[in-house]
Amino acid sequence: MSAAAESLLAGEADRWRAMTEHPFVLATADGILPEAAFDRWLLEDHVFVVEFRRFLAGVLTLAPDEPSRDVLAGGITALTPELGLFRAELERRGLDRDGHTPSAGCLAYTSFMMASLHDGYEVASAVLYGVEKAYLDAWTTVRTRAREAGSRYREFIDNWSAPPFATYVDDLGALLGDGEPSAAQRLAFGRVVVFEQRFWDALV
Amino acid sequence: MSAAAESLLAGEADRWRAMTEHPFVLATADGILPEAAFDRWLLEDHVFVVEFRRFLAGVLTLAPDEPSRDVLAGGITALTPELGLFRAELERRGLDRDGHTPSAGCLAYTSFMMASLHDGYEVASAVLYGVEKAYLDAWTTVRTRAREAGSRYREFIDNWSAPPFATYVDDLGALLGDGEPSAAQRLAFGRVVVFEQRFWDALV
Amino acid sequence: MSAAAESLLAGEADRWRAMTEHPFVLATADGILPEAAFDRWLLEDHVFVVEFRRFLAGVLTLAPDEPSRDVLAGGITALTPELGLFRAELERRGLDRDGHTPSAGCLAYTSFMMASLHDGYEVASAVLYGVEKAYLDAWTTVRTRAREAGSRYREFIDNWSAPPFATYVDDLGALLGDGEPSAAQRLAFGRVVVFEQRFWDALV
Amino acid sequence: MSAAAESLLAGEADRWRAMTEHPFVLATADGILPEAAFDRWLLEDHVFVVEFRRFLAGVLTLAPDEPSRDVLAGGITALTPELGLFRAELERRGLDRDGHTPSAGCLAYTSFMMASLHDGYEVASAVLYGVEKAYLDAWTTVRTRAREAGSRYREFIDNWSAPPFATYVDDLGALLGDGEPSAAQRLAFGRVVVFEQRFWDALV
Repeated sequence: MSAAAESLLAGEADRWRAMTEHPFVLATADGILPEAAFDRWLLEDHVFVVEFRRFLAGVLTLAPDEPSRDVLAGGITALTPELGLFRAELERRGLDRDGHTPSAGCLAYTSFMMASLHDGYEVASAVLYGVEKAYLDAWTTVRTRAREAGSRYREFIDNWSAPPFATYVDDLGALLGDGEPSAAQRLAFGRVVVFEQRFWDALV
Repeated sequence: MSAAAESLLAGEADRWRAMTEHPFVLATADGILPEAAFDRWLLEDHVFVVEFRRFLAGVLTLAPDEPSRDVLAGGITALTPELGLFRAELERRGLDRDGHTPSAGCLAYTSFMMASLHDGYEVASAVLYGVEKAYLDAWTTVRTRAREAGSRYREFIDNWSAPPFATYVDDLGALLGDGEPSAAQRLAFGRVVVFEQRFWDALV
Repeated sequence: MSAAAESLLAGEADRWRAMTEHPFVLATADGILPEAAFDRWLLEDHVFVVEFRRFLAGVLTLAPDEPSRDVLAGGITALTPELGLFRAELERRGLDRDGHTPSAGCLAYTSFMMASLHDGYEVASAVLYGVEKAYLDAWTTVRTRAREAGSRYREFIDNWSAPPFATYVDDLGALLGDGEPSAAQRLAFGRVVVFEQRFWDALV
Repeated sequence: MSAAAESLLAGEADRWRAMTEHPFVLATADGILPEAAFDRWLLEDHVFVVEFRRFLAGVLTLAPDEPSRDVLAGGITALTPELGLFRAELERRGLDRDGHTPSAGCLAYTSFMMASLHDGYEVASAVLYGVEKAYLDAWTTVRTRAREAGSRYREFIDNWSAPPFATYVDDLGALLGDGEPSAAQRLAFGRVVVFEQRFWDALV
């Protein structure tokens, strides 16, 4: 893990732990989350991924060199099958993604992410790392628990914590370099966790 | 009022009324809002105005013609004395604007506004109109009430509902033209009210 | 071909023909372009593709719906092997891409492209179509000529006019819809041809 | 002058001198530039200022703190009377600003400027300083010469080299700080001079 990534995470250790133990995450891992709540999550998370692709492309536009852009382009490419899975699963469940009205917590999180592009590459790349790392860590933490519980959601959890995704998140952390994170990066990284939690709060 | 502005407002009539009767607005008009809450409001609103200037400049960059850009440049110019008032009042009250941590509701609102720049001029100009019109209408609605109540906050309320500001807000509405608002404009305009309310919710 | 794409092309018929008969294109097709000039072209075109990926990502950020974003994400994905070919060929020829100073004509073209993102999706998507269609048409026009001449550059020309690329360019044209192009789209589309020609002028 | 501004200028000393002795500048100072060429200059420079206001607003959106934004907002405010002068003078001379087709050199310069916003605040603020400093230095260099020659254009030259403008340009230089300019800033600053010269080349 890059020194900057490590330092950002260390600065948010408490909130990070709380996030990975969020009631929504635990209920999903234990398989006790009602299907209706899980449906709602799929709709909300789909809205998030749709905006996330726009954000990721925005970070690529801002990125200052080809190695960084290669990593980010790889992320955009990986979103094509990811969005395909979402669309297929939503259809299978008869959920109308175009008719869904996202929660204020979902909109706040996607807005925060998109707005960070105006703060420049340094901040936006820290937000990007935070968003992906939070997602990865939350589901990785409960991966075993979900299997042991035989959770009906365990295939999803396996997908959200898969090794290639973990490698990609490490690559995003490496983009932040080995220096000390700036004050603006720390501030934005901390806010990622706040918005992620509020996004989940709306689901339980 | 331009046809597009009128149509956007008509589509949000219920939420608009609720907003202008928000407990925070009424308590300020009646002069019963505690000083500590008003201090907090000044700090929060200052954060908002700081981000609003960035947003307004972003809309100017996107605007497609000189008459629109002239209106927007006028708005940026008017923010110089406005920010001066904020800074002076904060200092007079011994409030530390740099040390203030904005509420999640404030951040969500400013993020939503900044993020809308990525949706293009059509949507961003509807957001701009909504933000300014909401502010104007809320304080205009209680202007007389504040005077009659002899509210200790009435000079602020007079400033936030002053005739030149009303004229400027009309000019912003005129930028939207006389056609029917697009679906994307309606959606964004409705979200302004949601975020504005949540911004105020955090204050009472 | 979409009606808008057809209309844009019809409006630039004269300049389009001149462009596809540019001395640089013909000399490459005939295989009489000196190797040093071709080396310089590879370096210049590499600079262009590097900036083009940033531009394409910027258009994705601005695009208003998922079908459009899917097409644009496909374009970004296709640039990964394309950039790989450039890097490999430059290395094979001992050309230093990091040390290359792009011509003013190259910088003007990439700047024009990147700047168009500030004019919004409508204009930027017309620029995107113009850039890709110009490239495709120029090399498609001389594809047979290059084979018949046994041009030493014919494998490159085959790549730049390959059927999957033609399909992708059609998809980009379809993004423009079936209405009449706006005045701003026509203006920007015409400027693409001017900048493309000046980019090539610097090479012969 | 800030250390960064001084270092950027020192790195471009040769091109800077050549620019301030450009045939267009000297012919204007000597009053021997034909009226038709001066008319064309006013039309071209007006196009530039129109885009420059959009650029300046874009830099304000990117700027990281209030003191920087205050300086940039001051610049936007100062452009209102400046654009008024342009519009009045163009009208007085019967020149049609809406019907004017800008030269490729003018478009390349404005495109380069607008495109630099995608490179982030650090680079864009160096471009902003370069653009304004080049303009100021060119006209300041020939200010006395124009008076002594009794140039019919001397009132324009006086305006473009007026003390308040010089103070503002110093303020822009101060925004760059006192550290060493980055490689990206140096590169962009050098390109300003190239594009400025090509802009003027199209006028003589």
